[in-house]
Amino acid sequence: MLERIRIVLIGTSHPGNIGGTARAMHNMGLSDLALVAPRCEPLTADTVSRASGADHIVHGARTVETLEQAVTDCTLVVGASARSRTLPWPMITPRELGDRLPAELAAPDARVALVFGREDSGLTNAELQRCHAHVHIPTNPDFSSLNLAAAVQVLAYECRQAWLEPSAMEAPPSQPLASHEELEHYFEHLERALIAIGFHDPATPRQLMARLRRFTLRARPERMELNILRGILTATEQQAERRRDDD
Amino acid sequence: MLERIRIVLIGTSHPGNIGGTARAMHNMGLSDLALVAPRCEPLTADTVSRASGADHIVHGARTVETLEQAVTDCTLVVGASARSRTLPWPMITPRELGDRLPAELAAPDARVALVFGREDSGLTNAELQRCHAHVHIPTNPDFSSLNLAAAVQVLAYECRQAWLEPSAMEAPPSQPLASHEELEHYFEHLERALIAIGFHDPATPRQLMARLRRFTLRARPERMELNILRGILTATEQQAERRRDDD
Repeated sequence: MLERIRIVLIGTSHPGNIGGTARAMHNMGLSDLALVAPRCEPLTADTVSRASGADHIVHGARTVETLEQAVTDCTLVVGASARSRTLPWPMITPRELGDRLPAELAAPDARVALVFGREDSGLTNAELQRCHAHVHIPTNPDFSSLNLAAAVQVLAYECRQAWLEPSAMEAPPSQPLASHEELEHYFEHLERALIAIGFHDPATPRQLMARLRRFTLRARPERMELNILRGILTATEQQAERRRDDD
Repeated sequence: MLERIRIVLIGTSHPGNIGGTARAMHNMGLSDLALVAPRCEPLTADTVSRASGADHIVHGARTVETLEQAVTDCTLVVGASARSRTLPWPMITPRELGDRLPAELAAPDARVALVFGREDSGLTNAELQRCHAHVHIPTNPDFSSLNLAAAVQVLAYECRQAWLEPSAMEAPPSQPLASHEELEHYFEHLERALIAIGFHDPATPRQLMARLRRFTLRARPERMELNILRGILTATEQQAERRRDDD
């Protein structure tokens, strides 16, 4: 899916932003970059430095003269935009864009373009009107202008999220959890140890054991962790016993 | 809510990344920046250029020597991390982080720190073990190293999303949670007590403290619960001391 998402940069002025875009794309598994009438030399030392190992994406980029040429084979064209100006246009959030992508790209020849405008002036109205929809990254209204590569980063991140979503993220490699029985043995052991060190008096329980249960259960202890805790209890009891023997 | 989310950068080498971080933060409505032992002059022409109007955030940043100092008042500390290494730790996605924030920040004195490591080597294991959870930005496994400011951009974006559209998740914790500082005092106390009862030998630590940290942080202890646990430690130490006195 990700290989059929194209990032289109129009009239970019700073090679560093092209490099930063390449890095953000490669980080998120995108590879198709098109440059429309760049206003700088796309491949400079700045590009390579900001690309940080992803400059093959800039080498592979297609450079064309018009937005038309960059998106001619695309089935969905979405323009990154501040809030729509003169003409209201379908406006989606980055999250909604991500939500739409799997269906949009279900057909094997479907292709999506995400179009980003100039650093200083964004996309023209004519360009915005060539898009099926506009995507607006929600920003602080007092400081809404994102760096170009940062805007690509956010949308590329949502693309990757949408691609990963079915499988979600792997859970952290988890060890076997303690069974109910093991937990109950632990709580019995804990209570004995607390009595032995004189911290707990079953005659005046003050909800102590209930509080310790709630705390412990909330952590969903692994079997191995419970073994450590029981080892601590045994060492504690040995101190208390030897103390009694010495009396 | 957003004003109580702190971005913590540890050992940053490039002023441009500090500027880029400030811009990403301000774009998303965050303002609280802490720099831990930066390995560069934080405020240079590069900073101001990349900040693009958000350099007041760098001017207002607190510079400290250790992670401890940067997060001492925080109730939730989340470290940005690649996949966990030696010790598995609770790992969440940026989206899950966002989902948790409204509940985490419901109490007026709650404060969340998002911690980012060095450009070249990330966070150390010791730093990672001071975090309640790690957040992993899903990236292309072949090219997983995000630019620092880009990583901040993605998490700050999720923070803003969570603020704009809070998902009605867990109810806020009923009791005040222990602060980072209180937790660290507890872990120091725990280690002393385990040494006193002969269960722990710092010369051969076998990850004991790391495992106990992970277990305890996973439960998100309330302040009151931590007081109980410290009471138990004090009682345990008294046994061990009296035992020594008797010898």
